[in-house]
Amino acid sequence: MKLEKLAGDRFREKPSDCVVDSHGLMVRGGYMKYVANGIFSSYMPLKRVMRKIEQIIREEMDAIDGQEVQFPVVMPASLWQESGRYESIGKEMARFKDRSGNPLVLGMTHEEAAVQLVRDSGQSYMKYPFMIYQIQTKFRDEARPRAGLIRVREFTMKDAYSFHTSQEDLENYYAKCHKAYERIYARAGLPEVISVASDSGMMGGNVSHEFMLLTPVGEDSIAICKECDYRANMEAAECIIQSQRNDVSDALTLVHTPDIHTIEDVCEFLHCDEKTSCKAVVYQRNFDDHYIVLFIRGDLEVNETKLTNFLGCEIHPAVITEECGLSTGYIGPVNLKGDFTVLFDRSLEGLNNLSCGANVSEYHYTGLDMVRDVEGAEYHDFAKIQEGGICPHCGKPAITISRGIEVGNIFQLGTKYTKSMNMTYIDKEGEARYPVMGCYGIGIGRLAASICEAHHDEYGPIWPMAVAPWQVHLCAVRSDNAEVKAYADKLYEELQCKGVEVIYDDRKVSAGVMFSDADLIGVPLRVVVSPRNIKQHIVEIVSRDKRFSANVSMETAVEELMKILFDALPGVIS
Amino acid sequence: MKLEKLAGDRFREKPSDCVVDSHGLMVRGGYMKYVANGIFSSYMPLKRVMRKIEQIIREEMDAIDGQEVQFPVVMPASLWQESGRYESIGKEMARFKDRSGNPLVLGMTHEEAAVQLVRDSGQSYMKYPFMIYQIQTKFRDEARPRAGLIRVREFTMKDAYSFHTSQEDLENYYAKCHKAYERIYARAGLPEVISVASDSGMMGGNVSHEFMLLTPVGEDSIAICKECDYRANMEAAECIIQSQRNDVSDALTLVHTPDIHTIEDVCEFLHCDEKTSCKAVVYQRNFDDHYIVLFIRGDLEVNETKLTNFLGCEIHPAVITEECGLSTGYIGPVNLKGDFTVLFDRSLEGLNNLSCGANVSEYHYTGLDMVRDVEGAEYHDFAKIQEGGICPHCGKPAITISRGIEVGNIFQLGTKYTKSMNMTYIDKEGEARYPVMGCYGIGIGRLAASICEAHHDEYGPIWPMAVAPWQVHLCAVRSDNAEVKAYADKLYEELQCKGVEVIYDDRKVSAGVMFSDADLIGVPLRVVVSPRNIKQHIVEIVSRDKRFSANVSMETAVEELMKILFDALPGVIS
Repeated sequence: MKLEKLAGDRFREKPSDCVVDSHGLMVRGGYMKYVANGIFSSYMPLKRVMRKIEQIIREEMDAIDGQEVQFPVVMPASLWQESGRYESIGKEMARFKDRSGNPLVLGMTHEEAAVQLVRDSGQSYMKYPFMIYQIQTKFRDEARPRAGLIRVREFTMKDAYSFHTSQEDLENYYAKCHKAYERIYARAGLPEVISVASDSGMMGGNVSHEFMLLTPVGEDSIAICKECDYRANMEAAECIIQSQRNDVSDALTLVHTPDIHTIEDVCEFLHCDEKTSCKAVVYQRNFDDHYIVLFIRGDLEVNETKLTNFLGCEIHPAVITEECGLSTGYIGPVNLKGDFTVLFDRSLEGLNNLSCGANVSEYHYTGLDMVRDVEGAEYHDFAKIQEGGICPHCGKPAITISRGIEVGNIFQLGTKYTKSMNMTYIDKEGEARYPVMGCYGIGIGRLAASICEAHHDEYGPIWPMAVAPWQVHLCAVRSDNAEVKAYADKLYEELQCKGVEVIYDDRKVSAGVMFSDADLIGVPLRVVVSPRNIKQHIVEIVSRDKRFSANVSMETAVEELMKILFDALPGVIS
Repeated sequence: MKLEKLAGDRFREKPSDCVVDSHGLMVRGGYMKYVANGIFSSYMPLKRVMRKIEQIIREEMDAIDGQEVQFPVVMPASLWQESGRYESIGKEMARFKDRSGNPLVLGMTHEEAAVQLVRDSGQSYMKYPFMIYQIQTKFRDEARPRAGLIRVREFTMKDAYSFHTSQEDLENYYAKCHKAYERIYARAGLPEVISVASDSGMMGGNVSHEFMLLTPVGEDSIAICKECDYRANMEAAECIIQSQRNDVSDALTLVHTPDIHTIEDVCEFLHCDEKTSCKAVVYQRNFDDHYIVLFIRGDLEVNETKLTNFLGCEIHPAVITEECGLSTGYIGPVNLKGDFTVLFDRSLEGLNNLSCGANVSEYHYTGLDMVRDVEGAEYHDFAKIQEGGICPHCGKPAITISRGIEVGNIFQLGTKYTKSMNMTYIDKEGEARYPVMGCYGIGIGRLAASICEAHHDEYGPIWPMAVAPWQVHLCAVRSDNAEVKAYADKLYEELQCKGVEVIYDDRKVSAGVMFSDADLIGVPLRVVVSPRNIKQHIVEIVSRDKRFSANVSMETAVEELMKILFDALPGVIS
């Protein structure tokens, strides 16, 4: 490919709306073009990176007996009504009607389509286990697309669905797929990706893992134990609190606390620690605005994922009205009256001598004893795990919190979809049974952006050879020099004949422009032909990461390059 | 791949709703699954055929300097408003609103997205010419999906867009792309595909060609001259009529024609030929139901595409009401009064002694003289070319009409999109100019179905090696026989190690079931291991098209197969 003809501009200035490096570099480098909020077109360099990632994934899915299939992007609503998700999924699912008025949806995931595809042919236990997968466009109407390709509305995804005759068989396959994912990230240049236990969310099922690239710009928070191998998405991490009850319980005492609303203000006013306060956090159910009042120890935060899972419905932070009966800033568990759902976090269980709101404007209590004053309270885990918190696995206070980008996920789905969509097989004994399912996803564009996020410098991406848009970036510096042009043209032809992917810059621009463009395109090997080099009868080979550079003779340049490429890509380059 | 695990059923009975062979075989063979009207999922065999077709197309597009990119499936309405097609395209474009109420559309073609992608970076004449292409899902809300993958609503398409600084450069590239298309069809096993001149329809532009597979089940009618190289879609073919005016004009005479409505009835009643009648065909404009009365010689049919192009708007056959002023069955050009658009086909120009309606119920005229009785009529070409008609190219009455499936199209678009979307470049003289565009499409699924349509027998598809889902179909007949199983397993492993794509049937089913499944999967080479063959120390190799069969020794089986495969796929198999 000649760089001169390459569609897409490269430029120096970081666009102001780019909050992460990969986004900035991919816009500056002519990889992607904004079309609408969370919707992008890809130029050739990104498309090539994505196709290489897709091919790595395809090979690894085929290696674990995956069958590549294709589901539609547009599906009838009826398919999603079968599973119940047409109703349970909210605005993130795009819906429309066709010319005949039939309701359709855009696929944001394809469990329903997978079951529909195989439920007729999967009727004998002999067919099992099997896995089908596709690499296909999906649309999810995200409320807040951000960070370029990290969170978009339209994306390309590899999604795989496995079917089994037992939970044990699913678990075996799940482990196999976990290993395949590790190979995928390693081959794509991200061996540092780790898997963490995760929340299954709208997918259903119990066991699930996310694959995370740890980076400060990640959207997810991950709890990692320094002492053992425990790793979990904060959404799913159990929060263990060791609270101490005082020997003596003070009396419940009403205190006038004018103009004091926040937990910080209360504790400062009462000269007590936030750990000795009982904080109220109020939500409303999305579907009917019913109020949920959750009490939690003052120093802790609510893990809304746990709360949503407990309630089985979506919630949002409450809008507290005068009529609702709640006294903003003064809500407490004693004498709380009204049609609310009242919940208690485990962090409060058994505690005494706490401060709390008195459900009367400008008044708090001190001396709250959860055992004495709040009868019949049930305690559940609604709290966010914290830095330094107790590891749910080894019990040591060794939790650290890191940020990460989720670059893949795997779920044990159980029979949620096969049951709701009535897919059965006949087992050896002639009994009809529901197959057990697993599902396995990787977003291609997000993985590409993550590779860039992990491998770049201020001048551009540093693509690993296996996913680089091209393998060699050939610069003919001063292509108006006939010798330079002739030799560079010859090199271009020869390398291409040998199957090497070359981007060739023979523009009449300065070496500075050439090299900064080359940095933005991020190809692993740069080959420089210039009048000075020609005079010395050499060709300059420099790696994009600057770790390698060599001057080789013009005669042996192709040979030397082929050696380097063969070392980087055995089996691909021969 | 083991056939036992292959998702999708194969069966003997032709589904009743399949009107073309390819559809029936692809449903019977476990290639595709109905999801909704015109929407299908693909099982592994079809997905593999499609990926091979895609790769052939990709290689040929790359060979003419194509840059693979990707546009979104979901696009903002604003992009289509720029070109004016948001309004001009009707119900076939799916439209919906996102969670914020912004109007979005599903891409049915991507001219707008292509211009949007390159209009910033294509500002210097140095960038030109260039071509960008994608292989992507499209959705077109067809009123009448039919024939399986031939006419669907969701489909995968390769669409390419080229940009040029002159019409001449476009024409050069257009010719290059025409050749690339010929190579694509030849490589995919359809060298018989021909190109025909076509109507540009909603794409705009003047010159365009369709690539047609001639087959009786095709949806398109194609006019082909037996005497010269003229070939055109009937929609676009000029109709040349050599009508003879009689020497003597009869007087215009009112005739009572009770209960006579159709042109056949009239001609029978009046004892005249349809060629001597003037027929009225009535349409209404879609947007305001305004009536269009078109007069044409009685034996000819209206080419609605020509009429639509002439009017510049969509039309439909008229619903004639009592109030509209038209007298059904008795409409004629003399004394026709009312707010109608009245048009005349060239076939009537200068004729006399015609019969026609008298615009009075139960009355016709005879002796109509177009020159004398219909003053100021303008004549245009609105007629369908007919079998035996006159070739617009060589002038001989040598037109034959064939049916064909359109398997690709290429358009010279001109500046329709660059002008409306304000894409300019600066030429050598420093002037801003609009680039000239071409666009080039191939539907992948329709091409797969067309290959099946052209290459099948009653038992299944006969896939050409280059697009076959696998290269070898290995049957272990009586796999309960240990020798059979051991040898077949070894063959399976060895062939796979050599890079051969093998589908392996080691099910404990009869040879009959095995072979009929193999016929439906349509793999070019069948290799049979059986107790009888083992006894004779041979392996049977049979080609799917039955043209080749050989018994080779068990020792040299792999070698022999590799030879056959190498001959069929030089460069792929080594």
